[in-house]
This record gives sequence, C-alpha cells and structure tokens, in this order.
Amino acid sequence: MSPPTQTRQWILTNPPSSLPVLTGDNPTFTLRTKDLPPLTDGQLLVKLLYLSNDPAQRGWIAAGINPKRLYVPPIKQGTVMHARGLAEVVESKSDKFKKGDIVTASTGWSEYTILDAKTVQPAPKLPGGLARTHYLGALGFTGLTAYCGTTIVGEAKAEDTVVVSGAAGATGSMVIQIAKKILGCKRVVGIAGGKEKCKWVEEYLGADRCVDYKSESFHKDLKEATRVSEEKEYVDVFFDNVGGEILDFMLGRMAKHGRVVACGAISAYNSREPLKLAHYSDVISMRIQIRGFIVMDFMDKAGEVVGIFKKAISEGKLKVGEENEHVVEAGFEEVPKVWMKLFEGANTGKLITKIKG
Amino acid sequence: MSPPTQTRQWILTNPPSSLPVLTGDNPTFTLRTKDLPPLTDGQLLVKLLYLSNDPAQRGWIAAGINPKRLYVPPIKQGTVMHARGLAEVVESKSDKFKKGDIVTASTGWSEYTILDAKTVQPAPKLPGGLARTHYLGALGFTGLTAYCGTTIVGEAKAEDTVVVSGAAGATGSMVIQIAKKILGCKRVVGIAGGKEKCKWVEEYLGADRCVDYKSESFHKDLKEATRVSEEKEYVDVFFDNVGGEILDFMLGRMAKHGRVVACGAISAYNSREPLKLAHYSDVISMRIQIRGFIVMDFMDKAGEVVGIFKKAISEGKLKVGEENEHVVEAGFEEVPKVWMKLFEGANTGKLITKIKG
Repeated sequence: MSPPTQTRQWILTNPPSSLPVLTGDNPTFTLRTKDLPPLTDGQLLVKLLYLSNDPAQRGWIAAGINPKRLYVPPIKQGTVMHARGLAEVVESKSDKFKKGDIVTASTGWSEYTILDAKTVQPAPKLPGGLARTHYLGALGFTGLTAYCGTTIVGEAKAEDTVVVSGAAGATGSMVIQIAKKILGCKRVVGIAGGKEKCKWVEEYLGADRCVDYKSESFHKDLKEATRVSEEKEYVDVFFDNVGGEILDFMLGRMAKHGRVVACGAISAYNSREPLKLAHYSDVISMRIQIRGFIVMDFMDKAGEVVGIFKKAISEGKLKVGEENEHVVEAGFEEVPKVWMKLFEGANTGKLITKIKG
Repeated sequence: MSPPTQTRQWILTNPPSSLPVLTGDNPTFTLRTKDLPPLTDGQLLVKLLYLSNDPAQRGWIAAGINPKRLYVPPIKQGTVMHARGLAEVVESKSDKFKKGDIVTASTGWSEYTILDAKTVQPAPKLPGGLARTHYLGALGFTGLTAYCGTTIVGEAKAEDTVVVSGAAGATGSMVIQIAKKILGCKRVVGIAGGKEKCKWVEEYLGADRCVDYKSESFHKDLKEATRVSEEKEYVDVFFDNVGGEILDFMLGRMAKHGRVVACGAISAYNSREPLKLAHYSDVISMRIQIRGFIVMDFMDKAGEVVGIFKKAISEGKLKVGEENEHVVEAGFEEVPKVWMKLFEGANTGKLITKIKG
C-alpha cells in the first residue's frame, strides 16, 4: 500500500470561552481534509493509532488567552488541535526510524501527520505484556506529572497525610499509588465523584480512603478520612487536579506548612467564574504554600522516573494495566466527542482514544 | 510614689465578624478597671508607654474563629486585648530587670500589667538618637517580618522585580527599603493608597515607582511601572499585605516561577466575602508559588536581622527615623480608636499609640 496523500484533521475553528460545542453553526472544532506534501529529509509520516486526552488541552484553546500567560504557544484558530499520540511510522526519510516503528509524538488530531524525526520518541514493546498505550499515561507525561508533583513540588514524606482530588483520573490515580506504595505515606486519601470511582481508588489503587465529593456528607467524610489521631487531623500535601470549591475547602484542612500541589483545575476550565476562596486566611495563619507547576519543568527527570516506575511495577508496588486506562474505540470523526468525556467526569484512569481502522 | 493597685484595661467583649464597633450596646471592646494583685517572685509590674498597632491583631479577635487555625491562641471573650507595647518597669521581683528599665513585651491594652520577667525583652537606649519606639517597628517584629518575608519566603534576588502592596504601611515600608537598598533589587515598585503616600514611598523610601491603587489608571500604571524591558515585564516577587483585588490582579502579572509572599490581607480582615481570583489559572501556567508565613517562624533570626539593620542604618542604606512612624498621642480611653486607623489606611509607616500621662 502506498502512503496516503491526504489526511483528515480536526481544526480549531472557534476558541471556546465556556464549554466547547461540537455542533451548530460555530463549532469549536471542524473536520477537514488536507493534502500531504512529499516528505523532506529527516521527516516521518506517521499514522495515528491512539490519542491521549488531557484536561490541559482545554487551556491551549481558550478564547482570548494571552499567549504570554501560557506555558506552550496557544493553538491558533484555523490550525490542527494539539495532542499527544501513539502512532505508526508509515514512511520515513530519517535514519532514526523505519517504516512500522511505533512512536509517541505530538501528533495532534490528525489521522496522518508529517513530523520532524527529532521531535519523535520511540515506543518500543514493553515487558510483561504491558500495552504501549501506557507511554501516553503512566509511562509518559501523566506519570511524570504525578511523580514530580508529589515528590518535588509537594515534598511528600512517609509521615505525611496526602489528599488527592481527581483521584480516579489519569494523574490522580498515579499520585495515589506513588504516595501510598512508593513513598509509603501514612495516610493517603482520594477525592472522586461517585461510589464506583471511590471503590476503585480504594480497592484497586490502594488509597486508605476515597471520599465522594458528590455526597452530601463530603466535608464530614473528608475530615474523618484524614483524622489520623487527635493530634494529627490536618493534611500535609494536597495534590489538586480540580480547583474550585474543593480547593477552597482543602485550604481550611491543610496542616501548618502544608503544600498544595496546583496541578490542574478541571472544575474551572469551562467556566468564566472566578475561584472563590473563603479560606484564604488559612494560607497565612497556617503558612500554607500553593505551588503551581507544569510537567515540562521536569523533562530532565523523565528517564529516572520511568526507571522508578518499572522497578515499582516489577516489585508489585505500582499497578499499571488495563484498569488504569479508559480506552474508547472510535472513528476519527468521533475524536472531539471522546475528548469531551474528560469534562463529564466519565473516565476512570487515563482516557485514551483508540482510532478505528 | 507607690505602685498602683488598680489598672484600666480594654476587654474584648464582642468578637467582631465585620468592622469592629466602638460604640452602641455591643461594642467590640469595653474599658474596665481591675485590681492588681501583689507581685510574686520573678514578676514585674510595668507601665505602658507606647502601643504597637498591627493589622494581625484583627485576626486574633475574629468571631467564630477555630483556635486550631490560628497561629496564636485567639483572645477569649472577656479578657484583655493583646498587643505589643513599650513599657517602663515600675516594680520588680526579678533580678533581670529593675525599676525604671524600659522593656518591650506583650503588654496588651492595659495601663499597668504584671508580667513574668522571662517573657519580657529589654529595650536599651538606641544609638544615634533613635527613638526606642522602633523596637515596636523596624527593630522589632515588623522589621523581622519584612526581612524574612522578602529574603527567605520571597527569595528576592538583585535581578528581580519586586512589588509590595501596603507599601506605605509598617511592614511594606520596610520591604521597599530592604529590597531596594539592602538587596539592591533591579526594580522595586510599591502599591499604596493616594498620591501623598506614593510620593513618600518613592522619595523617602526610595522605590523606583509607587502606584496609587485608588487611581482609575492603577492597572495600566502598575504594568508600566514593572516593565523593565520588552522581555522583562512581569514580577518575580510580590510581597502582599493587602489581599483581595490587588492580589488577584497581581497573579496575572507574576513572572514564571514568581513568588507571592502572603504576609497579610488587610482588605479582607473586616469582610466575610470570599477572595475572588480570576487569575488562578496563572498560578499553574506560570508556576507561581503563593507562600503564607508568620513572623514567629523566624524568631531565631531576630538577632541576625537587627544586626543587618543596624549596619544598614549606619551605612545610610536603611532610613529608620521619625518618618517611619506614625505616632498618635492619645489617652488610654482612645486606644481602640487609634487602632482602627489601620483599617482606614490612615497611617504612613508604623502606627504607634503614645499613651498620655
């Protein structure tokens, strides 16, 4: 089969200021077909197999965003939506990769993509029958985010009480395991939406407790779950993927010198409402630190962290398997629809799109 | 003259949930007269000369405060209002102090106070004709707050742009000088209320610029004042004494890896409204840290910092004089009224009450 000369792509047509819309006259994304030029030296043509779906992508397409206040160049109107993907090399003009190689790269929402080989990472077969999709999750940026956020930004130590919001999500589910199994933190408590997710966070991931934020008794439940003793009832590290009301509540539950790892704020990504903090005074009185971070600051740690994870997997301390992924098989025309599941709280573990055909 | 057997005291009678009230049926404070028992071994009887007025005192009397979320025990209803004071020993049963010694201590709002000598610090005469009231400000907790907040919490370096809110206040006015004159920071910008204060911050304290937050062009003015070059327009260290809208605006002006030194939030002390942050996403995207702190964490640095200040004063790098103090002479019955000036933005420099008679 000769390489394709055209590709379908999802183009950002209307940067959203609230929830992205997939239908109507002004959809956020539009499906287009584009000609593929011949490869030049050092280039690859890759075919998309799996897409990584990440809440952070919402920030890259925000309407009216000041490019100076984003950690990556924002996606321009009329250009392809950015995303990480697992792909197969179908044509190569680089001696680094050959036809048939499986790679990870910033493929974007494009069935076929021409890439500079220098921007592409090999995705060799993993031991123990582990699916290569984990390069998009546990063994990729997600795992690196979780590990560096917990250990470097959050400075989590064995004696600490650690709370994780979005605990059933891609990053949160890794943080729970890292804190409990790799660092051996005394008390690790998840926050997730719904009984099913909470059960999974406790039983599969091994959290000491997981509290349902949709429950009426959430505040009481969280207080109880984090009470280690009469003297130790507050939280040393809060790894926050959610923001909003949960962040505010947690500021009132942080221990003296507690660290809030500000990783994400998915509750606010589709909102224009400001964050309301009734507990800001606790930041001062309890000497809390709120520390924003971006995984890109820790790229030099990637090799070391993957090594730690592989060792932990082999020792049975870190579960990375089918259960950690929420794979949705879909035609390319369904890509935005699957991505939107992130904002519905639909996924348990890493949300991945398997491209049909 | 024999020592007094009674003292007047200001008692906390109604912990306030908004602005303290000094009149009416339920005043925040009530003046009472109390018998003084005879001294026991190790005790001193001191006469109040000067009172320190500090925004932080507002937090100690807040209605419904959870004592576990305060860095000092909250002041109980029916007991004396706490405060630091400069006082004269009128009777001593300790060999550490003798009658006539001038000391600083937690005297509270009490004309006469019995104190354990171990809790009292000597306030010996200062060189260069410097008033001893500076033990309550520049050479006391205020100066220590400013120095440790700027250097340890804010990690201010010479190449940094530093912004200080409440720049004409007790702490802010020290931060401006420390950043500009002791650390030699490239750009030091104050935020204060009104032209008079801004002029003082620039001309007396030596800020590169001071911006009036009451001006309609405040946002524009701040942006201009902090623009060092086309490449360097954002702020590395924001020393915040004010909170509220100014804090939110500043989150949108912080440089990558910028530090917000969360020292105070005077704009919110008399309010029940939550802090509204429209720029919280910048905390993540710009990797900002918001770091709460309390001067008590740095008490072990007190001697070192006073040494640095004394050297800086002798080298002309730090101006500590009459201009740094806002001394109000008042009868003891006016003590709460003078304190309330803090919340009217009435003071330039440290607000001190000189007790008449």
